[in-house]
Parts: sequence; C-alpha cells; structure tokens
Amino acid sequence: MSGDRSAIAAELRARADELDGADPLAEWREEFEIADPDLVYLDGNSLGMMPRRTPAALRHVLETEWATELIASWDHWVDLPTSVGDTLAPLIGARSGEVIVHDSVSINLYQLIHAAIALHPERDVIAVDADDFPTDRYIVEGIAAATGRSVCWDPTTIETTVGWERVAVSVRSLVDYRTAEIADLATETARARESGALVIWDLSHAAGVIEVDLHGAGADLAVGCTYKFLNGGPGAPGFSYVATPLIERIDQPIRGWWSQHQMFDMALRYEPRPDIGRLLIGSIGVLGMTAAQMGIEVVAEAGITAIADKARRLTGFGLQCCDALGLHSPSPRDERWRGGHFSVQHPRAEEINRRLAADHRVIADFRQPDVIRLGCSPLTTRYRDVSTACAAIAGYTAA
Amino acid sequence: MSGDRSAIAAELRARADELDGADPLAEWREEFEIADPDLVYLDGNSLGMMPRRTPAALRHVLETEWATELIASWDHWVDLPTSVGDTLAPLIGARSGEVIVHDSVSINLYQLIHAAIALHPERDVIAVDADDFPTDRYIVEGIAAATGRSVCWDPTTIETTVGWERVAVSVRSLVDYRTAEIADLATETARARESGALVIWDLSHAAGVIEVDLHGAGADLAVGCTYKFLNGGPGAPGFSYVATPLIERIDQPIRGWWSQHQMFDMALRYEPRPDIGRLLIGSIGVLGMTAAQMGIEVVAEAGITAIADKARRLTGFGLQCCDALGLHSPSPRDERWRGGHFSVQHPRAEEINRRLAADHRVIADFRQPDVIRLGCSPLTTRYRDVSTACAAIAGYTAA
Repeated sequence: MSGDRSAIAAELRARADELDGADPLAEWREEFEIADPDLVYLDGNSLGMMPRRTPAALRHVLETEWATELIASWDHWVDLPTSVGDTLAPLIGARSGEVIVHDSVSINLYQLIHAAIALHPERDVIAVDADDFPTDRYIVEGIAAATGRSVCWDPTTIETTVGWERVAVSVRSLVDYRTAEIADLATETARARESGALVIWDLSHAAGVIEVDLHGAGADLAVGCTYKFLNGGPGAPGFSYVATPLIERIDQPIRGWWSQHQMFDMALRYEPRPDIGRLLIGSIGVLGMTAAQMGIEVVAEAGITAIADKARRLTGFGLQCCDALGLHSPSPRDERWRGGHFSVQHPRAEEINRRLAADHRVIADFRQPDVIRLGCSPLTTRYRDVSTACAAIAGYTAA
Repeated sequence: MSGDRSAIAAELRARADELDGADPLAEWREEFEIADPDLVYLDGNSLGMMPRRTPAALRHVLETEWATELIASWDHWVDLPTSVGDTLAPLIGARSGEVIVHDSVSINLYQLIHAAIALHPERDVIAVDADDFPTDRYIVEGIAAATGRSVCWDPTTIETTVGWERVAVSVRSLVDYRTAEIADLATETARARESGALVIWDLSHAAGVIEVDLHGAGADLAVGCTYKFLNGGPGAPGFSYVATPLIERIDQPIRGWWSQHQMFDMALRYEPRPDIGRLLIGSIGVLGMTAAQMGIEVVAEAGITAIADKARRLTGFGLQCCDALGLHSPSPRDERWRGGHFSVQHPRAEEINRRLAADHRVIADFRQPDVIRLGCSPLTTRYRDVSTACAAIAGYTAA
C-alpha cells in the first residue's frame, strides 16, 4: 500500500472506530453467533448471520416437538406460516393476516404473477426489468411464454411504450440487487393503479433493512425472502403479501391441499381458504420455518427504524471510503434511495473479490459483470468492517 | 374388556412378544430418539420418528456451516438436492442422476404434470383417481382447468371410457393412503406406454417401506415425500424422479434461477440445466434437506429389502389381530399388494381414534370417512404396538 493510501486508510479506520463506539445497535452483535470476530463479513445481504437463539429453538423443535410430541405437534406447526407472517408484517408496513411465509421467493412470485393475470385475463403484457435478478426475469418469461403474453423489459418506460392499459402485472424489485437503488414504491404503485395494473414488489433486498410501507404506498402484492437481512438461515422460506381487499380474489395455480378450506375434511371439491392461507401449497418445512421465525424476531425486537437508520449510515460511510480511496461506486448518493448494501465497480471485480477473501478474510460477493457487492447488515456489520473492506479493495485497484 | 376378548388379546400379545424377540431389525429402534418407550406410535406413515443422528447433523450445519463458514457453505449446499437424490435412488429402483430432492410433493407433482402435458400438447385428458389423496386431485383439477383439459376420475377404466390416446398423463398413487393397496406399477405403466401416455407415480406412501422398482417397471416419472417412512422430519422436502431419456425433454413451468444452466452466470436468456437439476426452482431449504438426508441414510443402511419384509409381516400380523378381535379391515390380504400400513374401518372411527390417544396412548390417524390408519414403520414399530392398538380398538368397537 502506498504511503498516501495507508494514511487515508488509517484515518478511515479511526473514523470507523469512533462510529462503532457511538453505535446504538452495537450490542445486537451479541445476539448472533460469530465464530471469528476478525472476519469481515459483508455478505449478510446474501446469507445473514446466525442468531444465537436459533439453535435452541431448533433443538426444541427436534427434541420436544418432533421426537416427543410427534404428530400432535402439527396442531400448532400448521399455523406457523401465518403466525410468522404476522411477526414479519409490521416490518414491511403490512397488517396482520396479509403476510404468509412459505416455500421460496421464486414460487411465491410464480403464484402471484399467475393470480395477477387471472385478475386481468384480457391484458397481454407482463413487465420486468431486463436488469432485475435472474429468478424474477426467468419466472416472468416462462409465464409469458406459457400464457401467450409478451414481456416489457423496461417497466419505467411503460407509459411511452406498451401503455399501462395492456399491462396485467409489473414485477419490480424494491432494491436493486447490484446498485442498491431503491425504486419509488408509492409513485410507481400509484401510476400502475391508475390504469388498474398490478405491481408485485420483490422485497428480497429490502425486508429487514429499509423501512417499507406497503400500506402507505397502496401496494397490492409483494414477495420476499427471509435469509438475507432477516437472518433466517440457508434457504429459509420466502413470503408473500396480499393487501386485504385482494385476498379473496387471489386464484393461485398450485392447488396443494394446504390451500384448501378445512383441509382435513379432504373434500372432493377444491375450495380455497378464505384467508391468506390460500397461497399455501404442500406441507411447510418446519425446521426452516423455525429458523426464519427466530431471524425475523431478532429484527423486530431491534426495531426496523433503528436498523434502517444504521443501514443508511453504514452505506453512507462506505461511499465516503470509496471517495477517499478512489473507488467507483454505482450506488445512489442520496441515502433516501439507497438500500442496505453498496457496490464497487471495477473491470477486475471477480478476481478482486476472490482475493479479498483469500488475502484479507473480507467476505463480499461478485455480481456479473463487474460489481463487488458489500452488504451492510446493521445488526452484525461494523463500521470497521466497511473501512477494512474498502481499504483492501483499494489495495488491488491502485495498479 | 370381556373375558373372551381379554384372553384373545393376551394371546396376541404373547405372539407379538415372540415376533419382536425374533425380529432382525429390532435393534434399529436404537437409531431413533424415542422419548417414551411405552408410547404406541402407529403414525410413522404420517410423520416418521426422529433418527438420533439428525440433531447432530443439524448442529453441524448450524454451528459449523452456517455460523462459521457462512456463505462459502453454499459451495456444497448447492449439490444437496442431487446428492441426497442419489442416496434415495436405489431405494426406489432409480439410477444415480434420476432423482432430485426439493420443495414439496405438491410442487413436484405440479411441475411434472405440466412437463408431461407439454410433451403431449394435443392430448386433452389428465387422469387421477377420485379416491386419491387430496393434493393429487386438487393439483390435477387446477391444471386441467387452467389448460382447458378434462379430468378422467377413474384411471383404471381409461381403456373403456376416454381411451389412452387422449390421455396426456395419469397421476397414480402407488400405495392407497387409506387401504394400503399397492397398484400394479409394471402393468399400468406398460398399458399407458403402449399409447404413449405418461404416468406420474406418487410414491409418498411407498418410498422407504416397500421395494419399488421404477426401472424394472419402465416408469417415466414419479414424485414422493421424505417425512413419512423416510423419517425426514416435519415438512421435509419432496422428491422427483425422471427416467434418464426423458430428462432433457422436461420443460417445467416454474423457472426459478436454480433451474438455470450455470446459474451464477445470471445470463439474460433462460436455458434449463441439462440434468435433473432443471426441476429445481429457488434456494433449497438446507435445514430440512439435512434432516431428510439423515432419514434417508438410516433407511438405506438398514436395507429396503429387510424393511419391506418386516412391513409385510407387521401388517400381516395386524390383519391377524383384526380377524381374531372381530375388526374389519379394508386392507389387502395378499401381502404382495399391501403397503406399510393397514386400516380398520368403523362408523365411529373418528371418535375411536381420538379415544385411543387419550385413554391408551395409541397414536394412529383417522381418515375420512370411516378409517383408522395404523402405520407400520419397520425401523421403529414393534409387533407389540400392533397387538396393543388392535386390542384397544376392539375395546371400543364391541358395543
């Protein structure tokens, strides 16, 4: 490292230590199992760290509920998708009974897109951003092909291209998975609703790290995951949100018996549940659901307002580091439009990301084509993690 | 209990003790966490008991893989659906690379029905038994309605009613969830194949308790669950089987990014994986998958031949008990066509089943309209469990 850069890095590290010392959420790190305190983990936006309470909760499910109480435990397991949904609801501005946790985001999205086009059978366009996360694009493209619809690949231009009146549903990520740019939830929702179109908001990179007000924005539908900022564990279930007035109009395509009204009657005729439970499909994975519940509870207890505030400060400090060290970031400068991560763009991003882990024990991730993504998960990420990572990246980029 | 019935029950119990004493699989009960040895658990066909190795395996995933190794663990988690599928394959007569474990049976079934009709777009009938398990019926009915097809509700009469040439796919449970009758896998498969129709075999009540020879029968497609006789835990994932020549022709409808060839390239164009992995959808639930893996491994180690042999003996002994005690069972007398449970039919079945648990700590389950189902899971069920349950039922049925 050159003398100059060393001095700048030292200054940033000193500033980071000050910020960590004054951080009102600092003690929440104790709620997580952190094997190596020197590890710089900036990938909590991909796999959140493990809450300390999770192994104990799973032990209870295994030893008491499964091994001892056996089949009788289904009496309460059966309610987990809605009860965990109710815990999650206030974190995204939803009401009790509007959120259900089950299966995966890809499946949740597939169900809601089909439900949306069933509400607008005459509309022939589904919109999704060509730059959106692959699962959103592939799911949309598959449904469009299967139902004879076309895809509008730039939802921001609908008004001047296909026109909203042809759009059945637009799939939008609230936080861009590469740049962290936050889309305008209220304005985009209002614009779509003017012509009766539906928007499905994908909250995967938003839930648990920014304040989302689905009701305030008049949002109809949303999906998201629980393994990122909600710390629900590897492959933890996804969730769906449906605004109350729409719930009874939702006709979802995968009619597993868990979506059936009075499922244990095992009736001949299919009749969907009257509540949000009509989105369920088959047996829910109780182990994954329990871990998701623990992760969501920790976030709810710490408080989404404090978490979102720290996320803005962490990423803001990250951009200061980038500026000071000469790194280019495509992430928004305006903190109101910036989610819980920031990115560094560099032609050798993939190689640098690999070397960060090997040389510095800095864990971030690479995203095609040229971005290193640095996740700031406010309950576990320290300001010093951010300054260390940026200084290490700068060590590679200064040719 | 009347004197006669007491004497008969005592005799059956003595016979049960002899059979337990000579049971070559008796020691496998030690591989399971059994909190109360006096509990008569005959519901392993609904939720199998917990293998002792499962908590340790989960502890490893939690403490080492998630908490310590974090995101790097995805390097091997990503292979679990196929590696656990390969462990399961020989138990159902499938080959390596033909079985994949993920999501739920309802979802697996939905994907394969759609894939089957995509292979026969001109055929306008889907068949499923009106007496089959609800999820199979509801899923079929939903897809038929969505794709403008009709449902044939009695697959055994296809030849004389709609005719096989109109049938795209027939969904068949290999073991009837109420009576335990085994369908004729080889004959039914051959009959469908003669006219090019596909059969999806639902192995939920078969896998892990009877010997299934998918390849020997020439079967094309199958699904099943891992939480019953495979002891994979509450809501453990389902599995799909696709015979090798069909794999590359499978076009499944839920195109999550896990089904994408080289998923981390995040390419613009969807291109399905060339292998059985094209059935994957979104992130797999690692905790549920790990528990499924443990359950499947125990069954594989004990050996499906020995397990199936004991299942026939246990259920055969159950029918002897029914006969001796004057109980009516609708389960097949011929052990070659009887799965891993037997049923007692009685107009007051629901009430009796409730009282069995409350008065005798005998756990079975009630199935509409009039059946008590007694699951015989060979690695945990004892002959004395069977005689105790039958004697207790007889105590209620003798008016």
